[in-house]
Amino acid sequence: MSRLPTRPETPLDVLGIGNAIVDVLAYAEDALLEELGLVKGAMTLVDEERIEALYRRMGPAREVSGGSCANTVAALAGLGGRAAFIGRVKDDEMGKVFAHDIRNAGVLFRSRPASDGPATARCLVFVTPDAQRTMQTYLGACVELGPQDVEEELVAAAAITYLEGYLWDRPEAKAACRKAAAIAHAHGRQVALTLSDPFCVRRWREEFRALVEREVDILFANEAEITALYETTSFDEALQQVRREVPFAALTRGAKGSVVVRGEEVHVIDAAPVARLIDTTGAGDLYAAGFLRALTLGLDLGACGRLGSLCAAEIIQQFGARAERPLGPLLDRLR
Amino acid sequence: MSRLPTRPETPLDVLGIGNAIVDVLAYAEDALLEELGLVKGAMTLVDEERIEALYRRMGPAREVSGGSCANTVAALAGLGGRAAFIGRVKDDEMGKVFAHDIRNAGVLFRSRPASDGPATARCLVFVTPDAQRTMQTYLGACVELGPQDVEEELVAAAAITYLEGYLWDRPEAKAACRKAAAIAHAHGRQVALTLSDPFCVRRWREEFRALVEREVDILFANEAEITALYETTSFDEALQQVRREVPFAALTRGAKGSVVVRGEEVHVIDAAPVARLIDTTGAGDLYAAGFLRALTLGLDLGACGRLGSLCAAEIIQQFGARAERPLGPLLDRLR
Repeated sequence: MSRLPTRPETPLDVLGIGNAIVDVLAYAEDALLEELGLVKGAMTLVDEERIEALYRRMGPAREVSGGSCANTVAALAGLGGRAAFIGRVKDDEMGKVFAHDIRNAGVLFRSRPASDGPATARCLVFVTPDAQRTMQTYLGACVELGPQDVEEELVAAAAITYLEGYLWDRPEAKAACRKAAAIAHAHGRQVALTLSDPFCVRRWREEFRALVEREVDILFANEAEITALYETTSFDEALQQVRREVPFAALTRGAKGSVVVRGEEVHVIDAAPVARLIDTTGAGDLYAAGFLRALTLGLDLGACGRLGSLCAAEIIQQFGARAERPLGPLLDRLR
Repeated sequence: MSRLPTRPETPLDVLGIGNAIVDVLAYAEDALLEELGLVKGAMTLVDEERIEALYRRMGPAREVSGGSCANTVAALAGLGGRAAFIGRVKDDEMGKVFAHDIRNAGVLFRSRPASDGPATARCLVFVTPDAQRTMQTYLGACVELGPQDVEEELVAAAAITYLEGYLWDRPEAKAACRKAAAIAHAHGRQVALTLSDPFCVRRWREEFRALVEREVDILFANEAEITALYETTSFDEALQQVRREVPFAALTRGAKGSVVVRGEEVHVIDAAPVARLIDTTGAGDLYAAGFLRALTLGLDLGACGRLGSLCAAEIIQQFGARAERPLGPLLDRLR
C-alpha cells in the first residue's frame, strides 16, 4: 500500500454534522409494510402522531443509537480515528442514550441537549426478511439544529467536515451546513457529503447538483442516489457524469461493491464477504467510516475502498448501525 | 414424536411473574470488568448511584427489553404460545419500551405502570469477547412488585405459572410468588421456577430447597445453580439429588446440552449447533421458553429439551435476550 503525500496535521480527522437519532429496530414482514403504506427501502419523515401510531404497530424492537452521519463518526472513532459530532438531542432518556453512545464510542460531542421543545429524534427501522430496511423518522429535537450550533473551532480543527444530505430537509440545518463548508474551506480543510437517500436527492436535486460541483470535495452516494442525482437509470452514465463534475467520489453498489473516482484514478472494489446477512441498516454509513479512516491515515484509494467494504460487511451481519463488536481488527485485514 | 395425554384446556399456557427490566448491552474487554470490580458471569444488584457510575464507564450500548422471566414468556409467545406477564415498570420512556416490546411480542401484559417512585429497572450487561455476560441490575420500579399485583384470574387461567428466583431478593416479590403458587395449586395448575443465578441460590439456598421440594412442579436450573443448591461440585451428584427431591426438572449445561428428568424418565439432550457465538445473554431464558412451549403443546420430554436447545442456540448468536428474527420456524426443525 503506497501512502499519499502527508497532509498538514489537524487535531481532528473528521467532524460530522447530522441528525442525532435513536433507531428503533424491529423485524417486519413485507405484508406489514404494505398494510402501513410504507415505501420500502426509503427514509420517510413523519410527525409525532404518525410515529406513535407506527410504533404501536411495530413488533418487539431494540433501541440502538443511529443517525447516518453519527453512525459514520462513531465507527470512525472505533477504527482509531479522531472524530467529533454536532447534532441536537433533548435532555430526555433517549437523548442521554444517544449522548452516552457517541461519547463512549470515543467521539467528541459537546452539543448541549435542549431542555424543552420536541423529544429526541427517533427512527423506526422495519427490517424485512431480505435484510432491507425501511425507515420512518420523527426529527424531534433535530429541528433545532442551525448555524448557531456550528463552532468555527471544531470545523477548523478537522481535516474533513462530513455532512449528511438529510439535513437539506430543514432550512436551518442546511444553513448550518453552508456555514460549516465556508469555514472549512477558509481554513484549507475539506468538505465531504453523503447524498443519504434517493428520495432526499429527488427533493433537492438542483441544490445538490450545484453543491457537489462547487462546495463538496468528497462525495459519497449509493447507486440509487447517484442515478437519481443525474436522472439516469444507468450506473455507468452517472459514473461518467460524476467524473466530469466532482473531483472525488465514492459510489457504493451493495453486493456489487463500490467504485472510487478521483481525477484520472478509478478503482473498482469488490464487496467484502458476508456469512449471514441480517440488516442492511448502516451499510453506507460504515462504508464512509472505513473509507474516511483509511483516507485520513493517508492510505491509497484502493485501501480506502477496501476498508469501507469491510466495515459495511461487518455492520450488515447484525441489527443496527452501531457495531456490536470492535471494528479495530478490520484494519489488520487490509494487509 | 408421541403426545402426552391431553391435559385440560386453559385460556393461557404460561403466566410469568418477574422483574420488568430493560437491558443495556455493550461489548467489554475483561480488563474493564476487573477495573470496575465486577463478578464475571454473575448478576449483581446495585443502587441508582452505582448504575449511573457504571453506565458512564460502559461502551456504546444498545437497549433491548429483558428480565429473565419476561424473556421467557416473550419467546414463548413468539413460538405461538399463549402467555401473560406480571411485572412493574414506571411510566417513563424505558417503561414504555418494555411494555411495547412484551405486548407486541404477543404477551398479555396489563400491570399498570407506576406514575411515581423509582425509574423502570435497567440491567447493564457487559458482554466479554468470550460471549459471556456480566450483569449489574438496578431494580427501580420492580421493587413495587408485591402480592397486590397477582391477579387470581390470570393465575387460574394459566396451565403453568412461571416464577424467577431473582424475585426472592425482595420480600414483597417473594410474597407475590407464594400467593401465585397457592392460587395455581388451588386451581389445579402447575408452578415452575427458574433458579436464575448461582449467587441468588447461595443467598436463598434453604428457602429454595424447601420450595422446590414442596411447591414447585417444574424446576429449571443451570449447572452452576443446581450444584449451588445442593452444595456439591459434581453435576451428577446434583442430578441424583434432584431426582429424589423434585418431580420434574430441566437442567441446562451450556455447550454440553441439557438433562431432563421426570420421575423415572431421564433424557440427555445435546446442545443445538451454533455458527457464531455472540452473547450468551438469555440462553437459559430461551431454553425455558422452548421447553415450556413444547410441554404445553403436549410433546414428549425429549422434544421439550430439543426445542429448548434450539431456542437457546438461536439467542446466543445475537445481542440481547429478545429474538431479532421469528422463532416460529424452530418448531419445524423439531421434525
